[in-house]
Amino acid sequence: MALPFCAQAEQRFALVIHGGAGTLTREAITPELDAQIRAALNQSLDAGAAVLADGGTSLDAVVASVKVLEDSPHFNAGKGAVFTHEGRNELDASIMDGATRQAGAVAGLRTVRNPIDLARAVMEKSPHVMLIGEGAEQFAKERGIAQVEPEYFRTEHRWRQLQDVLERESTQASLPPSTYFGTVGAVALDSDRRLAAATSTGGMVNKRWGRVGDAPIIGAGTYADTNCGVSATGWGEFFIRLSVAYDICARMKYGQQSLAEAADAAVMTEVTVLGGDGGVIAMDAQGAIRMPFSTRGMYRGWIGVDGSRGVAIFADEDDPDGRIAP
Amino acid sequence: MALPFCAQAEQRFALVIHGGAGTLTREAITPELDAQIRAALNQSLDAGAAVLADGGTSLDAVVASVKVLEDSPHFNAGKGAVFTHEGRNELDASIMDGATRQAGAVAGLRTVRNPIDLARAVMEKSPHVMLIGEGAEQFAKERGIAQVEPEYFRTEHRWRQLQDVLERESTQASLPPSTYFGTVGAVALDSDRRLAAATSTGGMVNKRWGRVGDAPIIGAGTYADTNCGVSATGWGEFFIRLSVAYDICARMKYGQQSLAEAADAAVMTEVTVLGGDGGVIAMDAQGAIRMPFSTRGMYRGWIGVDGSRGVAIFADEDDPDGRIAP
Repeated sequence: MALPFCAQAEQRFALVIHGGAGTLTREAITPELDAQIRAALNQSLDAGAAVLADGGTSLDAVVASVKVLEDSPHFNAGKGAVFTHEGRNELDASIMDGATRQAGAVAGLRTVRNPIDLARAVMEKSPHVMLIGEGAEQFAKERGIAQVEPEYFRTEHRWRQLQDVLERESTQASLPPSTYFGTVGAVALDSDRRLAAATSTGGMVNKRWGRVGDAPIIGAGTYADTNCGVSATGWGEFFIRLSVAYDICARMKYGQQSLAEAADAAVMTEVTVLGGDGGVIAMDAQGAIRMPFSTRGMYRGWIGVDGSRGVAIFADEDDPDGRIAP
Repeated sequence: MALPFCAQAEQRFALVIHGGAGTLTREAITPELDAQIRAALNQSLDAGAAVLADGGTSLDAVVASVKVLEDSPHFNAGKGAVFTHEGRNELDASIMDGATRQAGAVAGLRTVRNPIDLARAVMEKSPHVMLIGEGAEQFAKERGIAQVEPEYFRTEHRWRQLQDVLERESTQASLPPSTYFGTVGAVALDSDRRLAAATSTGGMVNKRWGRVGDAPIIGAGTYADTNCGVSATGWGEFFIRLSVAYDICARMKYGQQSLAEAADAAVMTEVTVLGGDGGVIAMDAQGAIRMPFSTRGMYRGWIGVDGSRGVAIFADEDDPDGRIAP
């Protein structure tokens, strides 16, 4: 979907979102849940598109889209986040404005309702890029970012998921194959051709020792410059080691690779070679969209510069980018 | 200093270290302090070189070199770290093995004597790349990594530095120009041509809200692959936004830039254009060394593949890499 901007077209924006990648299969998901997830993805697209159609910035759009997914119990970010080994929810997020390359990131949050709001406040209202733990929550308090009781994030589904993993651990049974499904993210291009990217997550179920994945790492889980925006989801350790988000932008900038070549090489080749898996959503300054993933599924949705729109879950569903399903 | 490996040469390794970049001037440093700092840099070179000369790995060498600088009260890492706004020491570190691209990182430590030891333990003895805060300290405890009372890190010099900054803040006076001097790091190439890089810091004096800079961010403060190793020091926010460490490696990999071109472009151009400053030490797989910095000085030391060796502090001192002083 590398359609160029058209001066005659009504629409001058593009938006792509994800709700995480993982080993999801059709058998593992009921028709009702499938419908609820697609509805939430569409709601997220609506929120971002409303901003963009009104001439708003890509930065406002990605925040609007991500907040819908954070507020939905179906995704591993904000409400519905996975539990740590100790039975807590610890949230990470990051955001980047491609035009200015300003960025904000937060990790280890326990009370911030919408981590992406705090990441943006760090970017715009602090001299810093990354704040962690209690200090980050103190900054949220000082800035009036909405905070909630930790119970707010709890869903029975995620609690049972932790109990299941703990039980398997104690009985030496094999762990569930994919524990990172559900990280959310968005990349947008606005009518002034500014790109922005945002990512938010609860991390891995049963994580311990204050583990942080790629979602709050600028360059790994999130990156945006004037020609490239990326939000990642997957086995975060591999995405950090390969600086996946920035690697895609660097391939385009220094290697003259297309968005599709760059995103596919980073996700389908590099991450796979090291033994990891996952996916990204990526967009260039012409609004081309690429959504490669090496897992069985990735929750995703898109609105192209040509006005085309869709949501998908499984690898064999039609993508607008013509990617070959793995 | 792009000397090729020579099959006849005795020495088959190279090592470069830094003790931070900043606005240090000759007037601001006594001859005694100057001598002590150069002695510590030489001690750090000795520690790494002993490992490498004995056929040890670049990974062991960078840890040995960084630990000497962490243990010295003269650098902002380990003992002698700067104080946070609340009067605490909070330490960050990261390490990366270029041959395997395995990595480890820690942030927000208050009791770990040598943060670089914990970063390495995260890399080698956990399934994760990055651990933060109390969870990271719990992991240190479980792994028997040496812990100390928080008072261990305190030096009067750093305490007075915080009081000075707090006083200037309260009287609205201008802040000292450089508050990040002293981050430490090392990059090494061993006789098997494996590169490794490591970085350790106390962050910025008077930092608050759990601020984290580039030092523990893989891709920003530290990166290593088979052809490139980098450790950064400087105004961390800019180094994160530009993914400086990985950017240097990406310029070489995708843009066919030399180490010198890549390192100079990232530090002297990109960081400067955005309004930041700082420096890096960088090495390629032939043992070429580059040490660009845009500040008045950078504590640094090197042992080239040709056996040449030196330490330097100010911009106008001789470097082996022929860099033009700013």
